[in-house]
Amino acid sequence: MTSVLDPKTIGAPKRRPRRHVRTLTGYFPEKDESGNEKWPRGDEKVWKDGLRGLDNDQLSITRSIVGHVQLSLARQAYNLDNLGAYQATAMSVRDDLIINWNDTQLSYTRKAPKRAYYLSLEFLMGRALDNALLNLGLKNKYSEGINTLGFNLEDLLDQERDAALGNGGLGRLAACLLDSSASQELPVWGYGLRYKYGIFQQLISPEGQQLEAPDPWLDNQNPWELPRLDVTYEVRFYGQADRLADGSGKAEWAGGQEVIAQAYDVPIPGCDTKNTNNLRLWESKPKRGFDLYSFNAGDYEKAVQSSNSAAAITSVLYPNDHTTFGKELRLKQQYFWTAASLADILRRFKNMDKPIAEFPDYVAVQLNDTHPTLAIPELMRILIDEEEIPWAKAWDIVTNTFFYTNHTVLPEALEKWPVPLLQHVLPRHMQIIFDINLFFLQSVERKFPGDRDRLSRMSLIEEGNPQQVRMAHLACVGSRKVNGVAELHSDLVRTTILKDFVDFYGVSRFSNVTNGITPRRWLDQCNPALSALISSTLKISKGVWLKNLNKLEGLLAHVDNKAFMDQWAQIKQANKERLAHYVEVTLGFKINTKAMFDIQIKRQTLNVLGVIHRYLVLKGMTPAQRKKVNPKAVFFAGKAAPGYYIAKLTIRLIVNVARVINADPDTKDYLSLYFLPDYSVSLAEILIPASDISQHISTAGTEASGTSNMKFCLNGGLLLGTVDGANIEIAEEVGETNVFFFGHLTPAVEDLRYQHLYHPVPVEEKSPALANVLNQVSTGLFGDGSVYEPLLNTIRQGDYYLLTDDFDSYIEALRMVDEAYQDRSEWIKKSIRTTAKASLMGKFSSDRAIQDYAQEYWNIESAKVE
Amino acid sequence: MTSVLDPKTIGAPKRRPRRHVRTLTGYFPEKDESGNEKWPRGDEKVWKDGLRGLDNDQLSITRSIVGHVQLSLARQAYNLDNLGAYQATAMSVRDDLIINWNDTQLSYTRKAPKRAYYLSLEFLMGRALDNALLNLGLKNKYSEGINTLGFNLEDLLDQERDAALGNGGLGRLAACLLDSSASQELPVWGYGLRYKYGIFQQLISPEGQQLEAPDPWLDNQNPWELPRLDVTYEVRFYGQADRLADGSGKAEWAGGQEVIAQAYDVPIPGCDTKNTNNLRLWESKPKRGFDLYSFNAGDYEKAVQSSNSAAAITSVLYPNDHTTFGKELRLKQQYFWTAASLADILRRFKNMDKPIAEFPDYVAVQLNDTHPTLAIPELMRILIDEEEIPWAKAWDIVTNTFFYTNHTVLPEALEKWPVPLLQHVLPRHMQIIFDINLFFLQSVERKFPGDRDRLSRMSLIEEGNPQQVRMAHLACVGSRKVNGVAELHSDLVRTTILKDFVDFYGVSRFSNVTNGITPRRWLDQCNPALSALISSTLKISKGVWLKNLNKLEGLLAHVDNKAFMDQWAQIKQANKERLAHYVEVTLGFKINTKAMFDIQIKRQTLNVLGVIHRYLVLKGMTPAQRKKVNPKAVFFAGKAAPGYYIAKLTIRLIVNVARVINADPDTKDYLSLYFLPDYSVSLAEILIPASDISQHISTAGTEASGTSNMKFCLNGGLLLGTVDGANIEIAEEVGETNVFFFGHLTPAVEDLRYQHLYHPVPVEEKSPALANVLNQVSTGLFGDGSVYEPLLNTIRQGDYYLLTDDFDSYIEALRMVDEAYQDRSEWIKKSIRTTAKASLMGKFSSDRAIQDYAQEYWNIESAKVE
Ligand SMILES: Cc1ncc(COP(=O)(O)O)c(C=O)c1O
Ligand SMILES: Cc1ncc(COP(=O)(O)O)c(C=O)c1O
Repeated sequence: MTSVLDPKTIGAPKRRPRRHVRTLTGYFPEKDESGNEKWPRGDEKVWKDGLRGLDNDQLSITRSIVGHVQLSLARQAYNLDNLGAYQATAMSVRDDLIINWNDTQLSYTRKAPKRAYYLSLEFLMGRALDNALLNLGLKNKYSEGINTLGFNLEDLLDQERDAALGNGGLGRLAACLLDSSASQELPVWGYGLRYKYGIFQQLISPEGQQLEAPDPWLDNQNPWELPRLDVTYEVRFYGQADRLADGSGKAEWAGGQEVIAQAYDVPIPGCDTKNTNNLRLWESKPKRGFDLYSFNAGDYEKAVQSSNSAAAITSVLYPNDHTTFGKELRLKQQYFWTAASLADILRRFKNMDKPIAEFPDYVAVQLNDTHPTLAIPELMRILIDEEEIPWAKAWDIVTNTFFYTNHTVLPEALEKWPVPLLQHVLPRHMQIIFDINLFFLQSVERKFPGDRDRLSRMSLIEEGNPQQVRMAHLACVGSRKVNGVAELHSDLVRTTILKDFVDFYGVSRFSNVTNGITPRRWLDQCNPALSALISSTLKISKGVWLKNLNKLEGLLAHVDNKAFMDQWAQIKQANKERLAHYVEVTLGFKINTKAMFDIQIKRQTLNVLGVIHRYLVLKGMTPAQRKKVNPKAVFFAGKAAPGYYIAKLTIRLIVNVARVINADPDTKDYLSLYFLPDYSVSLAEILIPASDISQHISTAGTEASGTSNMKFCLNGGLLLGTVDGANIEIAEEVGETNVFFFGHLTPAVEDLRYQHLYHPVPVEEKSPALANVLNQVSTGLFGDGSVYEPLLNTIRQGDYYLLTDDFDSYIEALRMVDEAYQDRSEWIKKSIRTTAKASLMGKFSSDRAIQDYAQEYWNIESAKVE
Repeated sequence: MTSVLDPKTIGAPKRRPRRHVRTLTGYFPEKDESGNEKWPRGDEKVWKDGLRGLDNDQLSITRSIVGHVQLSLARQAYNLDNLGAYQATAMSVRDDLIINWNDTQLSYTRKAPKRAYYLSLEFLMGRALDNALLNLGLKNKYSEGINTLGFNLEDLLDQERDAALGNGGLGRLAACLLDSSASQELPVWGYGLRYKYGIFQQLISPEGQQLEAPDPWLDNQNPWELPRLDVTYEVRFYGQADRLADGSGKAEWAGGQEVIAQAYDVPIPGCDTKNTNNLRLWESKPKRGFDLYSFNAGDYEKAVQSSNSAAAITSVLYPNDHTTFGKELRLKQQYFWTAASLADILRRFKNMDKPIAEFPDYVAVQLNDTHPTLAIPELMRILIDEEEIPWAKAWDIVTNTFFYTNHTVLPEALEKWPVPLLQHVLPRHMQIIFDINLFFLQSVERKFPGDRDRLSRMSLIEEGNPQQVRMAHLACVGSRKVNGVAELHSDLVRTTILKDFVDFYGVSRFSNVTNGITPRRWLDQCNPALSALISSTLKISKGVWLKNLNKLEGLLAHVDNKAFMDQWAQIKQANKERLAHYVEVTLGFKINTKAMFDIQIKRQTLNVLGVIHRYLVLKGMTPAQRKKVNPKAVFFAGKAAPGYYIAKLTIRLIVNVARVINADPDTKDYLSLYFLPDYSVSLAEILIPASDISQHISTAGTEASGTSNMKFCLNGGLLLGTVDGANIEIAEEVGETNVFFFGHLTPAVEDLRYQHLYHPVPVEEKSPALANVLNQVSTGLFGDGSVYEPLLNTIRQGDYYLLTDDFDSYIEALRMVDEAYQDRSEWIKKSIRTTAKASLMGKFSSDRAIQDYAQEYWNIESAKVE
């Protein structure tokens, strides 16, 4: 029921205190005169009597599950299927997480430590149930309880849909860092978007074409999120920004579209600790009533459409190539998310009653890539227009709050936004960006007087038609520190794209945090047998070594122990059989699990050409010769961005090569090939533990870090790689003898590309083997060759990724892998060493990575919940 | 994770048995050899140990609420607001409903009685919490428990958003009938749609214009629905329907768009019984993967759009005027809903293992208006194409299954669909409708040979360009019985729109069920003081008289009891003060609660003109004369269909008249006027108990029944009305002396309209009083008169609603009301008699109405849950 409406009030900015009492996730135990906390409401005894504790014993576990079957699902033992049993179990486990979550938030509020916020447009979480059970240490008890109810835990785990709110590495990194933040008991929250459709579902047509279907992942309900009806913010788009004439620098931004951001909280349990952090995801919703954008008196249909337009903001995760979908909608996503997150962060800060100047003493915000860079002008806007702080002081707060992680040095991947678009969607922010740029360029000019080239290179605005805002520059200027994600990558950041900024600010602002992975998911969860073997071998409980991976070094002492080696090999074999079973169930192929399993999950052109080469070589052999060959099964998986034509052609080639060689009676016992559709975190958990060898073969300088390389190593899979990204640091730890390297080095790359362009040498001369492969594809060995011409031409002409340069050394590296694999017992030792050493100093654990951020960037400390 | 996709399989119809085991809301306690039920799964003891019973005592109630605060909301006493406390309370009460719901469904399945299904496109449920507490008999205990937690139940009740999935009377009738079905322990389910946006939110601009905003009512989460992930059906649109050449009459319908219907269940608690029925609402969702409609290789953006198009089907409740929004989408809504409902009904039937010919012995389906008429061809399609039953036998099943309720005799309100549109959206159904029509017209021709006019009048297809399908004819032909909703209305159905069908089928197919209202909501809930007074006066517990309203007759014995009369009057006064408080809070007006409260909630033109007349008369009086006048406060509420220009103009006039007269110092003590925006069930619950008099003044023959008239009576409000709809039957019960009637009778209406058209008499001659009123509006007494010309012209010219004919007798009736009100003690007696007699024979209780349907139409019996 509502009152009379005055349209003149529509779109006016709200002046509300950002501090709420009694709602939201701030907790305010007030004190009485004697300093004791007062019970906030009602009868303390009645309240406390109703509070539930953790379910630790089997009886309370089954009671809790049955209760959810009965009351949350309204079902009965008579009509419960695996999906229902999964849901009830998930809700039961969620209850435990919530108890810890509540305690954690209350404890953080009481202690009021400095907090860090990780802003990432992607969080590739995967499944939650298994992870929660393991981190809570309740997996066995739940498993037994579920048995007594007539179900099997492993079947239930399989009912969960992946939370796939990310395209790949950047999103999975965010997920690993969150797991580590809780496990390391650090007061960290993540902020992201709750996309209705996560990463698309990949299907493969009979021609081998990748098809992309939307994936309505929330359709099955999502027990792992808590809707927060009490945590909502209004976010504005479009409208008018008018600078006030009072000389204060303030402006008033009004009108346009107002939408609601509503929070959903995803509990992030730590391993072997009560600390349970929070991932807060925003959903966009229409405002009740009107905004100026939807106000259209007498046209109800338009009003409904505009409600839908509000909901559309968080509808789709953008696939990697930003060309699909409206650019404007993506810009709205970015602002929606940063505005809601900052409003929430600021409210939490204000509840502490500290002066605003102390904001950076209590808040650190990490920008994961440039996607959240609008947080910089947004915080300026809040400080200047709403908090009425002068520019210089505001800028000081801002530049002590933010930290920026760069993920790419490829110029074409650096984010830019057209000025007219930004002006239209966010008029006030465009003003602020221009102001920031002015002050910044003035200071550059003071340091390097008259260096106009430098000014134009460093400007936040790229000239052209239209002008563009360089988001990486804005992020760099507005942050306290900038980091890359592997040693080589951070070097490249300093020496290429941000070189001018190093000159200006000095090198100390530019540093490195090599990526890491969480050993909970990527060893304990995906490879429980190996985890158990490690615990029993080291005689250390896993709660300890999983949080201190250095301990794995202890495995080196057992590397020659025959019984241990056998167990190690058996586990690897079992994991290969699990993968083979998966392929049989989903694709219908039977796989020889004695073959070497060679796995790759991206940039596959070089690899598939290598497979073809191997096939051609095998075809040329006599049956007797073939018998001596190391049998090999090659697995591919990965999604191509929907608009990335050449990458999709590569998938098509793989599928068709597979079709031919898997059916060739001459060779199929020696070489087979599988493309596994719809790569996901859950599929990675099956693939990774099954690998004998995996390939990480990006052209040197193009892969910032890579994290799957670490995951393979941790599971005792050997690496074949280029000297790129984190491969380099892995090799440093594992030792060059346990890694197969090939290819040109980064410094050579630029020169080679120059040569390709200005002094091209035909592929026939550079690599006859490769030329033969291309020829066979061209002439139709794998179906109509003309289909693949565009792909083949990228190699024949230009060859940006240097396949013609690297192919022969790649083949040679593969030969060395085959040779090494012949000595199976030495291979197992290499496998053991890879696991043991990859973890030396826990270097590749995301625990180390998050501690790097905590100590060297954010300046936050652990806050253990008792 | 998914397998390779063959597009050739896209869009092929699924051949799946409709019987599921273990899932859905069928329950199959299997038996062992000795005939005892077997426990279905796991350890029976462990299961049973986990099952919860009803919360009957205060301790388990507070425990349950605190548990939901802690674990369902993840909140704490520290940060709980009223909304959160409402939610926790709602979830706690829901738990109790679910226990009863589970028992009810299991009991129905075990007893396997004949069931009835009520298909209605609208269910105007209002709020659920108060209703549930009252029906469970737990309101006092919850109220006390909530107090100990530091909250107040009444405040929490106020947090709930109305479930407003309806436009008005038709939807509220459906809601009352459901309440009665559970209270009468009848095995009835409702089927409807889960609209994301229910009826629009009405706002009033300063000019008095109605503005319509979409109302995202689900935003606050809805604790009263249970999502049923396990109850989904695929529904097809478009595509190809090919008749098979095998002479079987079968066709195959393939391709097009496939969407998922997912069930949400809303428990419907009965009063003072364990029986808890179900309202199943369908939500449309995209299929995972592709259908032919969305399959668009390489265009992810289009694929996402088409997912959204699937979700759009249940996005909006169509406002009363069907011109807004795409017609096609409304047709898709209707089919989506009927197809999903029938699939569900058929599956439940099949689980009983009876031959399909017995379908009508176990299933009755009530079509609430013509909206679900597509159920008739849909059931034919299923029986013929999927069950492979010959036409005649299928038709026999269909025509013994369905029952059709007509709600209007106004020709312009009878639903029709263009043949080309139906052909495009539902090609197979169009074939079937043509076939039905052919067989039907052949039999008409046999009975009335050569009567071509009759054939064309009765045809299911109206000729024209384009041809149209007459849904009322299809519903009539395909149903076993047809009913109207009040005696007069049912007469009109038989003698006007379906006269030819009466001639053909005989009159026994056409009958009447006068509408009813549930006394639980419309007395006990909205007027608890009156309910308590009734119980104490009659010395009957309310659980008894609320289910047997005849008992209220006992009040007649107390009509002269002074103490009782005083209490009665005090309660009315308190309800008036509650309304006055509501108006003060929402609109800011102070109201004299000693004035007579005159309330109307629709068709307001005549009334506002009467108010103006009263104002003009008052203005013409001396102060001394005025002092003798009966002071009056007039209340309006109601929503105009967004496209109904004249109705919106009436609202504008009301608002502007209110502005003038409420500010006029001469008159404001004697006459004031309020338009209450955003009429809803909850607002009705405040308005109705506060009325001294209410107006039900439709032009005779236009209002099918009306139900708010019954509600006012039940709360002791007197009626001023025309001789129309249920007013007639009410007067029969209450006695003409307690009702104020005026205006022409139905038989005269047609003739008067004819006169207006062919022998018009100027309004100045027919009613100088009305002419003066129109003139004052025209000349600007209430602001720019030209604005209102279109409205005034509908009266001056044509005057379809006969205002010029009825105005003087209307004014005279109002005068009699004033006169009667002067004798306050007689008025109170009238009020008591109105309540006591309106309920004579429980005639206007929806309990009576549902029993009429159960016994005379559906042939179902009560099935009490023990
Ligand atoms: C589904 C998915 N995508 C992407 C990645 C990232 O791999 P990388 O960091 O090697 O690019 C992973 C890592 O396991 C993954 O599981
Ligand atoms: C919100 C609402 N709309 C419509 C109606 C129907 O009134 P009537 O049957 O008199 O048209 C009611 C009845 O109370 C109601 O509460």
